[in-house]
Amino acid sequence: MHSEPQLMPWPRQVAVAGGAVRVARGDVTWLGTDSPRLLAEVDRLQPQLPALSIDCATAAPAYPQLGDEEGYRLDVDAKGAVRLVAPTEWGVLRGLATLVQLGRPGAQDIELPVAVIEDAPRFPWRGLMVDVARHFMPIDTLHRTLEAMAFVKLNVLHLHLTDDQGFRFPSSAYPKLPEIGGRGEFYRIPELEGLVARAAGLGIRVIPEIDVPGHVTSWLTAYPEFASRDTPLQPSERFGVHEAALDPANEFLYPALETLFREVAAIFPDAFLHIGGDEVEGSWWRDSLPIRRFMNKQAIPDNAGLHAHFNQRLSKQLRWLRRRVIAWDEVIDSSLSDRVVIQSWRGARSRDRALQQGFDCVFSAGYYLDLFYPADIHYGFDPEATSEALDATERALIEDPRLTHVRKGLQWSRRFAEKTRNGAPPRGRDPGRVLGGEACIWTELVTDELLDQRIWSRLPAIAERLWSAADVTDCDDMYRRLETVAGRLSDVSGVDLASFQRKALARLGIDPVWTPLLDVLEPVKWYARLLGEAALAARVDGHELAEGRPYTTTTPLDRLVDVLPPENLRGRAINRQLDSGELRSGEFRSGTMDSWAELARTWQDLPAGELAPAELGPLAERLRALGVLLEKLSGGSVPEDARATLEAASGTHAELYIVVLPTLQRLVDALNA
Amino acid sequence: MHSEPQLMPWPRQVAVAGGAVRVARGDVTWLGTDSPRLLAEVDRLQPQLPALSIDCATAAPAYPQLGDEEGYRLDVDAKGAVRLVAPTEWGVLRGLATLVQLGRPGAQDIELPVAVIEDAPRFPWRGLMVDVARHFMPIDTLHRTLEAMAFVKLNVLHLHLTDDQGFRFPSSAYPKLPEIGGRGEFYRIPELEGLVARAAGLGIRVIPEIDVPGHVTSWLTAYPEFASRDTPLQPSERFGVHEAALDPANEFLYPALETLFREVAAIFPDAFLHIGGDEVEGSWWRDSLPIRRFMNKQAIPDNAGLHAHFNQRLSKQLRWLRRRVIAWDEVIDSSLSDRVVIQSWRGARSRDRALQQGFDCVFSAGYYLDLFYPADIHYGFDPEATSEALDATERALIEDPRLTHVRKGLQWSRRFAEKTRNGAPPRGRDPGRVLGGEACIWTELVTDELLDQRIWSRLPAIAERLWSAADVTDCDDMYRRLETVAGRLSDVSGVDLASFQRKALARLGIDPVWTPLLDVLEPVKWYARLLGEAALAARVDGHELAEGRPYTTTTPLDRLVDVLPPENLRGRAINRQLDSGELRSGEFRSGTMDSWAELARTWQDLPAGELAPAELGPLAERLRALGVLLEKLSGGSVPEDARATLEAASGTHAELYIVVLPTLQRLVDALNA
Repeated sequence: MHSEPQLMPWPRQVAVAGGAVRVARGDVTWLGTDSPRLLAEVDRLQPQLPALSIDCATAAPAYPQLGDEEGYRLDVDAKGAVRLVAPTEWGVLRGLATLVQLGRPGAQDIELPVAVIEDAPRFPWRGLMVDVARHFMPIDTLHRTLEAMAFVKLNVLHLHLTDDQGFRFPSSAYPKLPEIGGRGEFYRIPELEGLVARAAGLGIRVIPEIDVPGHVTSWLTAYPEFASRDTPLQPSERFGVHEAALDPANEFLYPALETLFREVAAIFPDAFLHIGGDEVEGSWWRDSLPIRRFMNKQAIPDNAGLHAHFNQRLSKQLRWLRRRVIAWDEVIDSSLSDRVVIQSWRGARSRDRALQQGFDCVFSAGYYLDLFYPADIHYGFDPEATSEALDATERALIEDPRLTHVRKGLQWSRRFAEKTRNGAPPRGRDPGRVLGGEACIWTELVTDELLDQRIWSRLPAIAERLWSAADVTDCDDMYRRLETVAGRLSDVSGVDLASFQRKALARLGIDPVWTPLLDVLEPVKWYARLLGEAALAARVDGHELAEGRPYTTTTPLDRLVDVLPPENLRGRAINRQLDSGELRSGEFRSGTMDSWAELARTWQDLPAGELAPAELGPLAERLRALGVLLEKLSGGSVPEDARATLEAASGTHAELYIVVLPTLQRLVDALNA
Repeated sequence: MHSEPQLMPWPRQVAVAGGAVRVARGDVTWLGTDSPRLLAEVDRLQPQLPALSIDCATAAPAYPQLGDEEGYRLDVDAKGAVRLVAPTEWGVLRGLATLVQLGRPGAQDIELPVAVIEDAPRFPWRGLMVDVARHFMPIDTLHRTLEAMAFVKLNVLHLHLTDDQGFRFPSSAYPKLPEIGGRGEFYRIPELEGLVARAAGLGIRVIPEIDVPGHVTSWLTAYPEFASRDTPLQPSERFGVHEAALDPANEFLYPALETLFREVAAIFPDAFLHIGGDEVEGSWWRDSLPIRRFMNKQAIPDNAGLHAHFNQRLSKQLRWLRRRVIAWDEVIDSSLSDRVVIQSWRGARSRDRALQQGFDCVFSAGYYLDLFYPADIHYGFDPEATSEALDATERALIEDPRLTHVRKGLQWSRRFAEKTRNGAPPRGRDPGRVLGGEACIWTELVTDELLDQRIWSRLPAIAERLWSAADVTDCDDMYRRLETVAGRLSDVSGVDLASFQRKALARLGIDPVWTPLLDVLEPVKWYARLLGEAALAARVDGHELAEGRPYTTTTPLDRLVDVLPPENLRGRAINRQLDSGELRSGEFRSGTMDSWAELARTWQDLPAGELAPAELGPLAERLRALGVLLEKLSGGSVPEDARATLEAASGTHAELYIVVLPTLQRLVDALNA
């Protein structure tokens, strides 16, 4: 297996002959179209590319669109002839990414396996949503994100441009939206135009989201007239669902939104506009007398109906822009045109609610990168799995030993998803299709600096789920390739995870002696960090605490938990060693186990004035105790205090937890049995 | 002179050889383009046309536009060969109108003078504005108006679609505007599309006007949210300036107006949209606290500044529609883009205010057909006359003996025009150009049935002013041709003034015996009817009476004053006879004078139960007295009671006055001298 090419996403067909060739870098022989786009891309990737011929049948239009042909055939023969054939420029771009992954660049040449690869994507919509509202992401960050996306064949960058905490789109019709609502942190028009152009050069669509009618606190600080009540507001710094909502009964709202969306459409050429539509809290609507009168007059029974009215009315107004609308699954309603695409997020079942009502669907329910989940969890969500299989995948999270510390939260999530309903029963429409999926990174706890690691630690796995065949499901194989591919991102983009980690730890004063501890730490999962204990307890208890959360937009994100990767691949390796009985091997004992025993001493010996974060001490002590336990377990007996030791090491500390704990628990259980 | 062709507007060059030919009707020989438009027009005019050849160089686009080439050359040779040559279809259409006017259709053939005519218009913008808001004009009425317009080479039909009393545009975004604001009397989309298509077939542009921000009472009955105050309104039935105004401080108003104007633009393809802008009364703005706050914040000093803000903001919003804006002269302000065209109406000087500030201008100040003026008055206003000459023309109205009965009103008008000012002094722009002019028919006192007569009695004279050379100014010649051309309208359109008059008088129970009286009656001039005595007295006194006017939208317009032509050409002829000393001719005495003497008797002998209107009696008695006076004057002596007789006959009765009175006064004065 290891000798197989480290490709991700895995292609449709890979035939390797067994041999390898070394091919010098060199010019491209253009057998077909040599568009400026392709010339630029070949030039950019030049250090990673062997001499090759490219046979591209047709030049592509200026911008990619949904459903573009992206297939290609890549052929490396035993004589070192490399040939890439594709019907479109998009296919060539995808083939070039594969070729870079296929090669091992040396000083003089590129080593390549002799291989024939035929490839094409499973889904036409393979996206990443970046929330640039909660924390603003400078345009350069998005540029390097695009380049890394191209490397794993993602083709949609969805920008969540507005939210309660910030408005990042440079409206000139409503200039106070970015200036006041965005506190001056917003994109400039040429920046966005440049981003769209760069994305098109990489075969990536850019879809802008202006989230309405909820998530608009930032708007209302700038233009209270958008609101259904006259409350003066400050731009919000807190997280969680806000009450602010646009006034759907104001007939003038819709042309105004058209004006705004038209400015958006003038900059983003993609055929889709995202209108958000999630988490409309509803109390402003319930409390407004004019709105209740309006609902009465229009025979609108409830807030869901009012939201449906809003969506219908807005869609009608936006038809002048000649775009298709995409929105979060809250908007599902039989009154809505079936040209609207639903982005499914409130549990995997929302996919079926969308499809049954005739809406095409983009699946995101399993792909929230802000939950700090391991890659295999996301990888397990197949956008086209049967309802039962999806449901089982979701249910399995609750039993996942790695998520024990957030089990109550996961149970709540499941109840939340079960309670969600969307409007009337399906009418006689053909069911919708699954267009693909989108990973989402909500940035309450993500700054510009932290973004790369939060995305790229897991995103290649989701990219594979969306591109590769449904039966590509071997997790070990996926992780092996993920590690390689994530490591190579720095060859083709500004994303350099290793360098980030090195610098971030150094800044925290954590020197390499702590590596054994860092190897087994991960941030807590799900929304545990975001909610904090009080808000989590309240939520599980059935209500929300608006003000009791530990983080706001101004909380510094510079602790150990912020800089550690969401998933620790070294910890995963140790778990696998333990599971496969390496506990007794000398190498494991002298390596891992001894290092754990050292840790507490290291902490105690720490010279006064050292900068190492305080949270290291207690965690080191826990790990030391686990090392002692392990020592005893390796002798084949379970010590009396095993349960107590495990108990003491469990639970989270400083929003971190020790990832080997569930495995040790399993070992103890097995030996006890 | 009489033998000259009865053409109107008079062409640029007419060379008549003196002879005439009779040419059979027959097919057209197409030497150039034979577009569907031309084929249809030739077919329609067929009974009026001789066999001819048409040499049209190029096919025109679907719709005419400002500045289209409209020249042509028409050649009738001594052998009866008729040839029409034009570079464009528009020129062919104009040439066909000339050819119809040139010919005298007989049973078998058409008699034509041998002639060479070379022609082209002086101004590219030659329009008629019809107010379809005060009284709704069904679409058929507009169709026959178009056909008659083509006959005198007018090329713009401007529809004043909205006003306080009615909203006639079928908005689907704001359906209550026509339904409630128009009380259900509005055009259907296919009707408007058909009208635009028909107009294009005749080389006529159709310009829609949606009048904002004043004149919107009808809107606010349907959508109070457009207003700056929350006053529930009824659609207005009264006339005069209303207080209702849109709320310029509502940022949402502008996108909403764009939505409305976009619907308008979707139906009217012309490059211009008329946004009204006249007579913003201002008290609603002054009285609104939020508006005053807004003005304060924006440093807008007064209502004029606020109107300028509104126009600027609206123009900016409408730029998406890619149309040019035209508006009434109130909008002149240096802050406004000089792409806006100004329609000058508040006195002839408004033309120069527009030009000096760099705006192109459409001149209407001299062309208000609702003032019941004689044709020569309109004819005297040259859109490109010097400021001094225009001013003199306007001032001369006050001294015009035919307008003595409204002298105070005219003096007020002049003060009104002198008080009008427009914004800041000119900035460094090139002066604007005069594009042409538009006759306007405001329809407070005009129903569908009355429209033709109110327009066509004088409009051909204005059409000539706009098409023909500036030195075509002979009024007697104009009147001679006007009478002929107006009489021939029924040959080429549904406009049939003679038939209307006959039927209208019959319906009033007025039989031909009354002709001598009717021959010397005219409706009172200026706004005398509209204001009534109380409101006129108040106005002259410096204030307006909102409620004291004699007419509303529901007042029946079925009295003698309504059906008599605004200008009485027969009365004009009698005046000329009197002026030229025909007083002593036997024919005049046995004809005109005797008939006057008969009138009072006719009235007294009227059988009980006759339907003839009561106003005939007193007028007949006055005329009889004038007949007696005339009898004496014809003897060369001025009777003692001359002054008393004239005094008794002067003044208006039932909104009518006797048009020979000023002439008799002059005769008496001359004999007394």
